[in-house]
Amino acid sequence: MKALVLDELNKPPVCSEAPLPEAVEGKVNVRIKAAAMNHRDVWISKGMYPGIRQGVILGSDGAGVLDGKDVIINPSLDWGDDPRVQQKSYHILGLPTNGTFAEYVSVDRNKVFAKPAHLNFIEAAALPLAGLTAYRALFSRCGLKSGEKVLISGVGGGVALMACLFAVAAGAEVWVTSGSAWKIKKAQDLGAKGGVSYKDEAWDKTLLKETGGFDVIIDSAAGDGFATLVKVAAPAGRICFYGGTRGKINGLNPQLMFWKQISVFGSTMGNDAEFESMLDFVSEHKIVPVVDSVYSPEAVNEAFERMSKGLQFGKIVFTF
Amino acid sequence: MKALVLDELNKPPVCSEAPLPEAVEGKVNVRIKAAAMNHRDVWISKGMYPGIRQGVILGSDGAGVLDGKDVIINPSLDWGDDPRVQQKSYHILGLPTNGTFAEYVSVDRNKVFAKPAHLNFIEAAALPLAGLTAYRALFSRCGLKSGEKVLISGVGGGVALMACLFAVAAGAEVWVTSGSAWKIKKAQDLGAKGGVSYKDEAWDKTLLKETGGFDVIIDSAAGDGFATLVKVAAPAGRICFYGGTRGKINGLNPQLMFWKQISVFGSTMGNDAEFESMLDFVSEHKIVPVVDSVYSPEAVNEAFERMSKGLQFGKIVFTF
Repeated sequence: MKALVLDELNKPPVCSEAPLPEAVEGKVNVRIKAAAMNHRDVWISKGMYPGIRQGVILGSDGAGVLDGKDVIINPSLDWGDDPRVQQKSYHILGLPTNGTFAEYVSVDRNKVFAKPAHLNFIEAAALPLAGLTAYRALFSRCGLKSGEKVLISGVGGGVALMACLFAVAAGAEVWVTSGSAWKIKKAQDLGAKGGVSYKDEAWDKTLLKETGGFDVIIDSAAGDGFATLVKVAAPAGRICFYGGTRGKINGLNPQLMFWKQISVFGSTMGNDAEFESMLDFVSEHKIVPVVDSVYSPEAVNEAFERMSKGLQFGKIVFTF
Repeated sequence: MKALVLDELNKPPVCSEAPLPEAVEGKVNVRIKAAAMNHRDVWISKGMYPGIRQGVILGSDGAGVLDGKDVIINPSLDWGDDPRVQQKSYHILGLPTNGTFAEYVSVDRNKVFAKPAHLNFIEAAALPLAGLTAYRALFSRCGLKSGEKVLISGVGGGVALMACLFAVAAGAEVWVTSGSAWKIKKAQDLGAKGGVSYKDEAWDKTLLKETGGFDVIIDSAAGDGFATLVKVAAPAGRICFYGGTRGKINGLNPQLMFWKQISVFGSTMGNDAEFESMLDFVSEHKIVPVVDSVYSPEAVNEAFERMSKGLQFGKIVFTF
């Protein structure tokens, strides 16, 4: 079968012939129709991930066909019994396990769900990892309620954009930050009320003036800028981060945090029940993930370059 | 009446004659029998608090008599309707409102509760502020469950010590840190399983080896050391701080925090329902606050000096 295989580090995976997955008791081979990229795939290809295995088929997100039914795959593997936190053996489809960037992928039967009926394969493939991460962050961790004010930082990212869609669907008033004015404009087209450039030095004051502060903040940057998120949080504000691209968090004012009764949550991916709830939520609200572009697996270099350069708005999807 | 009145900044309050509180509709005048000090009183006397008013009677904690009944006072005033966070008009008894360091204090009738029957006035006076803060931090914010492992930093402090007693009573395995070996020993006498000196450079490694990590951590220091608390947190660990004596929080590793699904809560004081639950908990478990020493109001200088120098273990109480 055709597959995108990690051949050499610091290069995108290579489109090559790979053996079909073997038949394994309890597992099924899903015929992939579409598979979406995540930053994780780029980081793995650059060697910036623990447990890298040469020869692995990359890809966490996939939608396809099993036994004549349209399906979507939960990439969260071996979470364990505690809904609050994954166990040690937890991993994400696509490393070390062979992933979705192939004509077939082998997964446990209980990781396969009916594709939301309102989505085509490309849109469905864009959903799993980002949708699960955004859902847990917004609802399980931050307990988002209708009518609350939400800030989503760096709305260009896959999870951030999904969080924007979900929060709008949940009846929140959503604001975004981005370094690109056109991304803020696009987020507004998707239902965000407004946004600011984080390159503008007074962005926090502008937002505070416009909104009075945020009940829920979703972030993936961390770093020195995180302290500013505390400043723009409303009393009883909840701040959840699922990434740390800007490095260590510095300069948090403890008095401000305890007086405002702020909560800060680290979060990653989600458990099996959250994946199912996320699918129900997406079907109920007819949410359509934003697809940036669609590539054939042969165009893997272009796809990886596009994501590496951060040119995309929405998910980059391969069709098989 | 006799009262401890803030006369001059950077000096302890002065034991002097003050007028009896006026009769006000909806308020009652409680005859104070014992009133406990908090660090707050020292900070106010040093001018390190917003809204300082010369001539105010200090004191947040008090127990006494009203209409022939033994009572205890909730010092948390005007919290408001949101159990998650206090409203803007929230304040603590003893600034700007005249406090408990007097023979009589005027409070709203709904701030007066029956004194837990197993406590004398001195012990009861030691309970309110520290008990409320510890209760909200441990139970409302961190959701402590029986059998969990708890770390309490700087166990010499009033809230920390109360958190130690409460966590032991709740069936947790409690560990402490302190700069003083004798304070660790005293905490062990109160039911803590063990402790380490935070002056020992490898204290985090020692504790991780002994315990495998903490489900709940209660802190009042913040500062650079806070990052080490994240390291000794177990997966799904909750860290709550109610103070920031060491200043800004720096150097938090976001990857460690999101991968372990860590929660960090700022917390201060507690709402009215939490005060009632705290009293029920104290009565049910027959918890006796630790009293360090008892002073007459005339010995106010000695009492303030003892707390300023951090010599106490437990609460310092005035009797009126």
